[in-house]
Amino acid sequence: MRTGIWLIGARGSVAVTATVGAFALRARLVEPTGCVTELPEFGPAGLAGWSELVIGGHDVVTTPVLKKAEALGAAGVVPARLVAALAGELAAHEDDLRPLPAGGTQAETAELIAADLTAFREVHDLATVVVINVSTTEPAPQPHPAFADLAALRAALASGDAVLPPSALGAYAAFTAGCGYVDFTPSTGARLPALHELAVEAGVPYGGNDGKTGETLVKSVLAPMFALRNLRVNTWSGLNLLGGGDGANLADPAANAAKVASKQRVLSDVLGYQPQGTSRIDYVEDIGDFKTAWDLVTFSGFLGTGMRVEFTWHGCDSALAAPLVLDLGRLTAAAHHARRSGPLPELAFFFKDPLGCTSAGLSDQWATLVAFASGLST
Amino acid sequence: MRTGIWLIGARGSVAVTATVGAFALRARLVEPTGCVTELPEFGPAGLAGWSELVIGGHDVVTTPVLKKAEALGAAGVVPARLVAALAGELAAHEDDLRPLPAGGTQAETAELIAADLTAFREVHDLATVVVINVSTTEPAPQPHPAFADLAALRAALASGDAVLPPSALGAYAAFTAGCGYVDFTPSTGARLPALHELAVEAGVPYGGNDGKTGETLVKSVLAPMFALRNLRVNTWSGLNLLGGGDGANLADPAANAAKVASKQRVLSDVLGYQPQGTSRIDYVEDIGDFKTAWDLVTFSGFLGTGMRVEFTWHGCDSALAAPLVLDLGRLTAAAHHARRSGPLPELAFFFKDPLGCTSAGLSDQWATLVAFASGLST
Amino acid sequence: MRTGIWLIGARGSVAVTATVGAFALRARLVEPTGCVTELPEFGPAGLAGWSELVIGGHDVVTTPVLKKAEALGAAGVVPARLVAALAGELAAHEDDLRPLPAGGTQAETAELIAADLTAFREVHDLATVVVINVSTTEPAPQPHPAFADLAALRAALASGDAVLPPSALGAYAAFTAGCGYVDFTPSTGARLPALHELAVEAGVPYGGNDGKTGETLVKSVLAPMFALRNLRVNTWSGLNLLGGGDGANLADPAANAAKVASKQRVLSDVLGYQPQGTSRIDYVEDIGDFKTAWDLVTFSGFLGTGMRVEFTWHGCDSALAAPLVLDLGRLTAAAHHARRSGPLPELAFFFKDPLGCTSAGLSDQWATLVAFASGLST
Amino acid sequence: MRTGIWLIGARGSVAVTATVGAFALRARLVEPTGCVTELPEFGPAGLAGWSELVIGGHDVVTTPVLKKAEALGAAGVVPARLVAALAGELAAHEDDLRPLPAGGTQAETAELIAADLTAFREVHDLATVVVINVSTTEPAPQPHPAFADLAALRAALASGDAVLPPSALGAYAAFTAGCGYVDFTPSTGARLPALHELAVEAGVPYGGNDGKTGETLVKSVLAPMFALRNLRVNTWSGLNLLGGGDGANLADPAANAAKVASKQRVLSDVLGYQPQGTSRIDYVEDIGDFKTAWDLVTFSGFLGTGMRVEFTWHGCDSALAAPLVLDLGRLTAAAHHARRSGPLPELAFFFKDPLGCTSAGLSDQWATLVAFASGLST
Ligand SMILES: NC(=O)c1ccc[n+]([C@@H]2O[C@H](COP(=O)([O-])OP(=O)(O)OC[C@H]3O[C@@H](n4cnc5c(N)ncnc54)[C@H](O)[C@@H]3O)[C@@H](O)[C@H]2O)c1
Ligand SMILES: NC(=O)c1ccc[n+]([C@@H]2O[C@H](COP(=O)([O-])OP(=O)(O)OC[C@H]3O[C@@H](n4cnc5c(N)ncnc54)[C@H](O)[C@@H]3O)[C@@H](O)[C@H]2O)c1
Ligand SMILES: NC(=O)c1ccc[n+]([C@@H]2O[C@H](COP(=O)([O-])OP(=O)(O)OC[C@H]3O[C@@H](n4cnc5c(N)ncnc54)[C@H](O)[C@@H]3O)[C@@H](O)[C@H]2O)c1
Ligand SMILES: NC(=O)c1ccc[n+]([C@@H]2O[C@H](COP(=O)([O-])OP(=O)(O)OC[C@H]3O[C@@H](n4cnc5c(N)ncnc54)[C@H](O)[C@@H]3O)[C@@H](O)[C@H]2O)c1
Ligand code: NA
Ligand code: NA
Repeated sequence: MRTGIWLIGARGSVAVTATVGAFALRARLVEPTGCVTELPEFGPAGLAGWSELVIGGHDVVTTPVLKKAEALGAAGVVPARLVAALAGELAAHEDDLRPLPAGGTQAETAELIAADLTAFREVHDLATVVVINVSTTEPAPQPHPAFADLAALRAALASGDAVLPPSALGAYAAFTAGCGYVDFTPSTGARLPALHELAVEAGVPYGGNDGKTGETLVKSVLAPMFALRNLRVNTWSGLNLLGGGDGANLADPAANAAKVASKQRVLSDVLGYQPQGTSRIDYVEDIGDFKTAWDLVTFSGFLGTGMRVEFTWHGCDSALAAPLVLDLGRLTAAAHHARRSGPLPELAFFFKDPLGCTSAGLSDQWATLVAFASGLST
Repeated sequence: MRTGIWLIGARGSVAVTATVGAFALRARLVEPTGCVTELPEFGPAGLAGWSELVIGGHDVVTTPVLKKAEALGAAGVVPARLVAALAGELAAHEDDLRPLPAGGTQAETAELIAADLTAFREVHDLATVVVINVSTTEPAPQPHPAFADLAALRAALASGDAVLPPSALGAYAAFTAGCGYVDFTPSTGARLPALHELAVEAGVPYGGNDGKTGETLVKSVLAPMFALRNLRVNTWSGLNLLGGGDGANLADPAANAAKVASKQRVLSDVLGYQPQGTSRIDYVEDIGDFKTAWDLVTFSGFLGTGMRVEFTWHGCDSALAAPLVLDLGRLTAAAHHARRSGPLPELAFFFKDPLGCTSAGLSDQWATLVAFASGLST
Repeated sequence: MRTGIWLIGARGSVAVTATVGAFALRARLVEPTGCVTELPEFGPAGLAGWSELVIGGHDVVTTPVLKKAEALGAAGVVPARLVAALAGELAAHEDDLRPLPAGGTQAETAELIAADLTAFREVHDLATVVVINVSTTEPAPQPHPAFADLAALRAALASGDAVLPPSALGAYAAFTAGCGYVDFTPSTGARLPALHELAVEAGVPYGGNDGKTGETLVKSVLAPMFALRNLRVNTWSGLNLLGGGDGANLADPAANAAKVASKQRVLSDVLGYQPQGTSRIDYVEDIGDFKTAWDLVTFSGFLGTGMRVEFTWHGCDSALAAPLVLDLGRLTAAAHHARRSGPLPELAFFFKDPLGCTSAGLSDQWATLVAFASGLST
Repeated sequence: MRTGIWLIGARGSVAVTATVGAFALRARLVEPTGCVTELPEFGPAGLAGWSELVIGGHDVVTTPVLKKAEALGAAGVVPARLVAALAGELAAHEDDLRPLPAGGTQAETAELIAADLTAFREVHDLATVVVINVSTTEPAPQPHPAFADLAALRAALASGDAVLPPSALGAYAAFTAGCGYVDFTPSTGARLPALHELAVEAGVPYGGNDGKTGETLVKSVLAPMFALRNLRVNTWSGLNLLGGGDGANLADPAANAAKVASKQRVLSDVLGYQPQGTSRIDYVEDIGDFKTAWDLVTFSGFLGTGMRVEFTWHGCDSALAAPLVLDLGRLTAAAHHARRSGPLPELAFFFKDPLGCTSAGLSDQWATLVAFASGLST
């Protein structure tokens, strides 16, 4: 099943790492380390093979993907030798990228985006295309009445109003073009009642939000440990130090707030109460693409005895995120093919702030994901 | 259902913490923090209530339990005010403790132990008694032909030979007295084919080995995180610093080796391969009852990118272990009542080195445990 | 030489810990651990003995010192048995404490404060009194022309204006009463040109600011390590988690800002440049009086190779601060006695944000301090 | 002043990193980060300039230096682009390296080594040559009577006996060739009374032992912090995880023991007592050239309050060591030029286990070093 993955933010770190990796996997230059859908549990799910995946995308900058890939190679995010070996493919990849269109109104922009998606599907003869948002995190939008239902949204757009934040406009365009949509960022994406209606109407699935790659991933396994052992978590405080493009953007207080909120949700979801403490994000240019996060957890055990655990996570965010982007593309395409539409809460395993009310513990999310994937093939 | 818990090593830190806690729970002076069997999932299992539990035990030293409890209070392991409030009960508790008997032969010693167990059951009119080993960890015994089957073992004992290490002799005596047996230590306990036969013959269940309370507990949730995300763990190295009685004993290389082996098993079980690195235990008198463990994990992600996580665990071992001892007593008694005999692999949630081939991930172990407990009540 | 130490904030954690300790040292119940002036280098300096020290003070709350001491005992800041042993002295100590006076104008308040100081000196027949500010950290004041010289300040006060923040008013009163003054907080204290003039005029010494007890203390030894080895520090980021009264106050952004600034100064002073990164303070009630600070330092070595060190500091702030308060009392009294007036930059060893231009490395500050103390005795 | 540095172990990691760096500095391709002798304090000392340094050496393996440099580039120890830029010089450098000679007796071997040194000096017209041992750490030798004085040593060698470990034989040969000698390893080196006599007789200086680059460097600044604040260190425990050639060798218990002893000496030297705890070294192949060390320090403050600090050091040993090797070459050559002979205790700043009785605190060692260097120029 030839499958398209359309990346919004296609020239960013996550997108280019995913692209380099997809090309390297297709060329059998690397093992699929970090790709969840390559684990044996997904064998029967009938997901698109590496040679069946085609990547395209939008961006607002024009840095060549090859140049970005070389920068990622120099920074140790991807092996420089892989970039060299794939230079031809990475240069040719430019043909599948488009500047983000800008119409006179949001309605026109959405049409232009949808046209790019349709053209991509046709040119490459793809059975399905999944749009994945890996662009810069937006601030949370002001509430607007047009969010509440599809008729109101259509009316607002028709009247020429700019009501949607960019991520939601991308989801709108994806749905109208018959594409599934996944938001890997904490932005709004498809999370508006009006867009939900549209996805169901269009018969396409959507997933999100905010890929779970670092501190929150650890939280999603450590917090259940405390819960299952009936230990009381008193404090959970953390500091995330990161550089890179994402870090620079998150230094902006509004984007930071969106991210921090999605980072703390896992604790109250798993524990049933919110411990003291917050999770902070600081931009430190020198740290670059390798994030360092430190967390302190204080807890009480039997008879109230106080104890503590701290951890330091030193991870390369793009290298953690990129294989998940490919996983999400494969799984969402298969769900679309299996005629699933609307939200995919079964993808909670991948997200900090998952859609729907699902368990926040990673193991439960895993069981749900495996069951979901098995169900797709039947 | 009046239930007895007979502790081998009844004057040690874990035993006395469990005893103080059981009395405090009975007197409703504390919340059952740290007691797994108090979580809602165990409501239907019909476990013995705190007022139905009676504690007795053997030890080779004679330090009064109240004195030991006061020492634990001064060290911050249990609240000093609780010890003061329960001083009367703790003094009266001496009536339920016996010096470890010593017969002329191991056969005679086993008979004397069994007699103490039977007397305890009768004096307190108990429906069932579970023997739990919380005594000093032994070195691994030399292999002996009598371990292999019950007939050979009975013959060896009848001939006056001393073939069993103390923990296995305790299990032997427990089974002959019709009691379930749990080994909370890494010692041999019931893990001999001959003892397995005896347990089945006597219709009693057994569980073990080695309570999972610190670094290994964290491993049992962190290792699955790497496995489920298809990340390759290259190194897992750790250092455990601990004082206290258990620490002093583990400074002995033979006991240390037994413990270290049971600490590393979880990694190969979960990951399917053994990463580089070892887990060390050092005795540091000044650290006392609060253990500090540091672990470094290095791993590879997408395209081989190297990353790392380290954690420091600062836990009070006795406070972590004691509620599990009570949980194991309640669950094993219920299993006995439900006519389960032989090994209880469903208790793997509690152990570093569990019986049988079960998943080493904590969440899977949890699901197994909950299903097991539900099954007991029907 | 009978010496008085007058604590502003005498019922707070630092003050009461210092008081309990001074009484315990006088009664020879403890070793002088943590008291710098008890090291052999200070033997010849002729400092006041423990039995010659008298403590008094002001506060704005009325909690009995004994009650506060008991709370500190329960929290593990001071040994509960010491508080019990000294209960009589701690109750009697109330006679030497006064509510902070409040006159109709600042001029009147200053007179009332000075009167309390004079009365304290006379009642106890003290050779000298040192006022030490250990009260709540204030926000930085708005600049005011009266800060610039003593004549302007006197005129402003005479006209009934309230121009000084409380800490500066305390310094003003101390100087007019002929007392030395030390500011253990990051507040303004004596750091105004007008107050400098007054100290010189009155012939009294002053010291400050902001006791160096935790993360900054470690910085003051680690930063020189990088400098002396010609290693380039790229990033120094930290997070301080603390509860207690001081923590609650520092949660206030204005006080926090004052504190954070004084925490970062050491780096640029030692290194000659300011690395990236900031030092944050978060209030976490559950952490209580034991602060946890985590710092990450990234640095470049030979040929630019990137490396890193991180540390976690888990200290009891009041236990670290209290002996330094006694040290500062002894040293400032001796300096007064030796007719030193004006700023004492030689006390930089004790402070995050020291007066004057001195080396920020702890070892240099130590050498300066020892030379200073030796000079006092001659 | 044209100066030779002769490296024993010239094809190892430290040696090749130093060589790449020296060439890069000569070519002005890099800043001298990590070179202590480039700090302003050493300006007046008249040390050899980068263009005046010539490097040669012995090794027992034949791996080309360029190949080793490329491997270090791939591992991130040195920048790969530097190795590429210096490929010509690194290939040409082979001319200055010699296989370690092996005569029929130790006496003959020493003569052959000395001949290589003399030839090196003459070919390059060098004012002085300093031999620096950066070869594999040896086990401690068995004591031998010939160590005790030069006559006995000469007699033993003359009789054909092999009495000296390789490092000491290297020192013997260096001294007979009129060269200074520095031992950067914990091996015996020049530390035998017989060799001391010889150095004095030959009028050459020597220094050592065991370069201070990681955990011990941090200890040498943190331990003084506790001492100067009169805080009592109770425990200092550490674990060093390292791969690479040095790591593999230190996995050998005998070499490990030599290293661990030199790592703990700093604590008793600075504190005046030995805290509990040990420092362990584990070989972990995957860690490679970047060592990770974790240390836990527990200490008591005022009134006995217990506190702790832990740190994790993640350093590249070769990148830390290499500039010090160049520093030691420059300083020892200058000392030789200034007619210093015998031990140079003033170099303690660079060593874990310095010669002579000097302060173990880094700041004191710094002051001593700067004074020493100034003295050389006069
Ligand atoms: N890396 C991770 O582990 C991780 C985890 C969760 C979420 N995320 C999110 O993924 C996103 C991408 O992260 P990154 O590190 O690649 O960031 P990046 O800054 O490297 O890339 C973002 C890209 O988006 C482009 N862009 C910005 N606005 C756009 C728009 N309106 N339309 C199309 N393109 C646009 C930018 O030009 C840039 O090329 C961020 O929002 C981040 O928060 C990343
Ligand atoms: N605390 C934990 O988290 C934890 C976790 C796993 C396993 N364990 C194991 O639990 C055991 C108890 O730990 P602890 O900290 O209470 O140790 P402890 O030293 O305080 O207590 C052990 C007690 O066993 C007694 N004893 C020794 N030999 C005996 C024998 N043959 N028969 C009867 N009693 C005997 C001792 O006298 C002592 O009172 C140890 O084996 C330990 O390894 C503890
Ligand atoms: N503990 C440390 O390690 C450390 C280090 C450096 C600086 N400090 C500073 O020391 C001060 C005291 O810290 P703490 O932990 O004892 O705080 P705390 O809150 O326990 O005590 C402060 C006391 O000051 C009193 N106070 C407030 N305003 C006053 C005023 N105008 N006049 C007189 N008293 C007043 C309060 O009532 C309280 O009793 C803080 O400013 C803190 O920032 C402490
Ligand atoms: N890197 C550091 O931070 C540091 C700090 C202190 C001490 N040291 C010491 O420096 C030494 C070198 O470390 P490395 O990482 O370069 O090790 P390495 O294993 O990479 O290099 C050692 C070299 O010595 C050679 N060698 C072995 N025996 C020899 C002999 N008898 N004569 C001549 N050459 C011989 C080996 O062939 C090898 O090339 C070690 O002893 C190490 O303990 C290193
Ligand atoms: Na750490
Ligand atoms: Na840590």
